[in-house]
Amino acid sequence: MTTTVIAQGTFDVLHPGHVHYLEEAASMGDELIVIVARKSNVDHKDAPICSAPQRRDVVDALDAVDEAILGHETDIFKPIEQLDPDVIALGHDQHHDAAAIEAELADRGIDCAVERASAREPASEDELLSTRLIIDRILDRRG
Amino acid sequence: MTTTVIAQGTFDVLHPGHVHYLEEAASMGDELIVIVARKSNVDHKDAPICSAPQRRDVVDALDAVDEAILGHETDIFKPIEQLDPDVIALGHDQHHDAAAIEAELADRGIDCAVERASAREPASEDELLSTRLIIDRILDRRG
Repeated sequence: MTTTVIAQGTFDVLHPGHVHYLEEAASMGDELIVIVARKSNVDHKDAPICSAPQRRDVVDALDAVDEAILGHETDIFKPIEQLDPDVIALGHDQHHDAAAIEAELADRGIDCAVERASAREPASEDELLSTRLIIDRILDRRG
Repeated sequence: MTTTVIAQGTFDVLHPGHVHYLEEAASMGDELIVIVARKSNVDHKDAPICSAPQRRDVVDALDAVDEAILGHETDIFKPIEQLDPDVIALGHDQHHDAAAIEAELADRGIDCAVERASAREPASEDELLSTRLIIDRILDRRG
């Protein structure tokens, strides 16, 4: 019996917060599949800087990740139906409502736990633990 | 007998070109150690956006990498002396002169091959295969 965990996100400019989230998600089961959001799935923040295949390829290179795939263009639950995971791991700062996700999973007959990962404790001074902070520093120093 | 490979670089905003370089370096031996440049080591381009420990932690999370360490503040050959690798893998676009590195290694009594990794063939449209290109797009879209 393999316990499959799904994590998901945009992963536009990779930082240690992403790594922490994915390592914690991997520890929730035996196999971690990451769904990388397409640009069309990102409606709550600015469009990603890097293309979806580029973001997928970088996430797929992480030790914690068994497989990274692109999200569905319109129905973000479609790959979850197909993969039938045991656990969905949400990032600590992801805006999704766990209860709403659980309700949608139940509607679709997917029997799956929804867990939320912890935040990374900064391991060193001057960590930039969000893509937004990295972009702000780029604009500040080079803009 | 373990064949140890060293790769090195700044790895400021991780992209698939970095991943390709490190995966190819890993394939040159059994164990890959990556030396991540400190800000004081970066004199040929703008100062990195992310701190050295942050860049090290992201590189260390890659599947291809056994260990990522920070470079020496002033003598970039010091960790190479200590690690005594079998191979140093240079990135395809790194400005180092392989012959000059070989001469310095010989001076220090380090018996080590110097290889150069290939460039990544773009795997999809719109890949940004350098930190510079990613920063330029950020300035263009958000600046």
